[in-house]
Amino acid sequence: MPNYDILTKSPVFRGLNSEQLSDCLRTVHIQMKSFRKDNLIVNAGEKVNQLYIIQKGSVRGEMLDYSGKVLKIEDIEAPRALAGAFIFGKSNVYPVTVTANNDVELLSIPKNEFLKLMQKEQTILINYLNDISTRTQFLSNKLHFLSFRTIRGKIAHYLMQESGSNSNTVELKHTQQQLAELFGVTRPSLARVLGELQREGLIVLGRKNIVINEKKRLSQLLEKD
Amino acid sequence: MPNYDILTKSPVFRGLNSEQLSDCLRTVHIQMKSFRKDNLIVNAGEKVNQLYIIQKGSVRGEMLDYSGKVLKIEDIEAPRALAGAFIFGKSNVYPVTVTANNDVELLSIPKNEFLKLMQKEQTILINYLNDISTRTQFLSNKLHFLSFRTIRGKIAHYLMQESGSNSNTVELKHTQQQLAELFGVTRPSLARVLGELQREGLIVLGRKNIVINEKKRLSQLLEKD
Repeated sequence: MPNYDILTKSPVFRGLNSEQLSDCLRTVHIQMKSFRKDNLIVNAGEKVNQLYIIQKGSVRGEMLDYSGKVLKIEDIEAPRALAGAFIFGKSNVYPVTVTANNDVELLSIPKNEFLKLMQKEQTILINYLNDISTRTQFLSNKLHFLSFRTIRGKIAHYLMQESGSNSNTVELKHTQQQLAELFGVTRPSLARVLGELQREGLIVLGRKNIVINEKKRLSQLLEKD
Repeated sequence: MPNYDILTKSPVFRGLNSEQLSDCLRTVHIQMKSFRKDNLIVNAGEKVNQLYIIQKGSVRGEMLDYSGKVLKIEDIEAPRALAGAFIFGKSNVYPVTVTANNDVELLSIPKNEFLKLMQKEQTILINYLNDISTRTQFLSNKLHFLSFRTIRGKIAHYLMQESGSNSNTVELKHTQQQLAELFGVTRPSLARVLGELQREGLIVLGRKNIVINEKKRLSQLLEKD
């Protein structure tokens, strides 16, 4: 049975209350699927024919490397979706093999039914578009940061980009964990370099902002990168 | 005036004929905008409040670097859209400044009206979802390839990934130009390294496929990378 209280917390259904969601889902064909610990859910390379939303439990995404060794990519927990950005597009296959970590219940919405849902309920359409667009924007940003080799270069680039031409204060939209992910470095390494830049007098770290003391010296870090 | 013959060739409207598109667009508020050569169309950082589709002419996307120097990013021609992946999501601002290269006509569909169009006409919804998902998948793949430093490593990784465990023939889904873009290298450099690998006897290049002669030696390239 779908648990609407949990499902309304899922990114794709947020903004709907349980009654609205139950009304929506009544109009399309859906299915509940159960898995026990270590059951295979989907294989990497399998075509994505449905939106799976985890209603209970957690799953892990894994890849095999060329020697056959299993590499864990990430854990995904209720109420998130599986491979949401891979339902449409030219490469609509699961990028990883997905296995249950414990007792798992999935809501399965076939691709065609999901299209109907988005056409019927604008909240779902907007949620889904925001989700995959934010993902695209994050990846595009991350690719951009990869062109700077050092953490100092990445930080300088980020601060120059966010501060614009007239201000010396950057309001932080990202946590240090999110910034570390964007830069492709560990959080402790990022914190260490931020600390260095503060001790060198280039920046002052606040709780929710960073003040740039010496914009010229900061931009020189970019040239050295 | 909207030119339906041209607009039906745009990625977001493909699959509709001129009459169907004209019927669709009649139900929403749209606007035609004209620009002369070198007119500014949008500034980098401006919020994306509409879908712009180029009906006539071409535009260029440019960024300023920190010294104020203009860097050209790309030209976009009719009947493509501007910044299609930036209408939704957390960072829905134009990533570049857009300027007309010649006489330009744009179809402007406000964000809310575009949502209505997608809800009304499934073809438009599917086209748009396929477009932004393909973009996400391309970026995700490109990030993955960036973890290999050398072109030899990137090619070896691509061929091992595409051939799977049982086959030694890779049907090419990408042109050499697309592969070069995916790897972040120039097309001539890619062609040179492919030629080297053929001369060394690891692969045989066909017109539409690549045959792997020595899978073991190919996978050793990955370890050396």
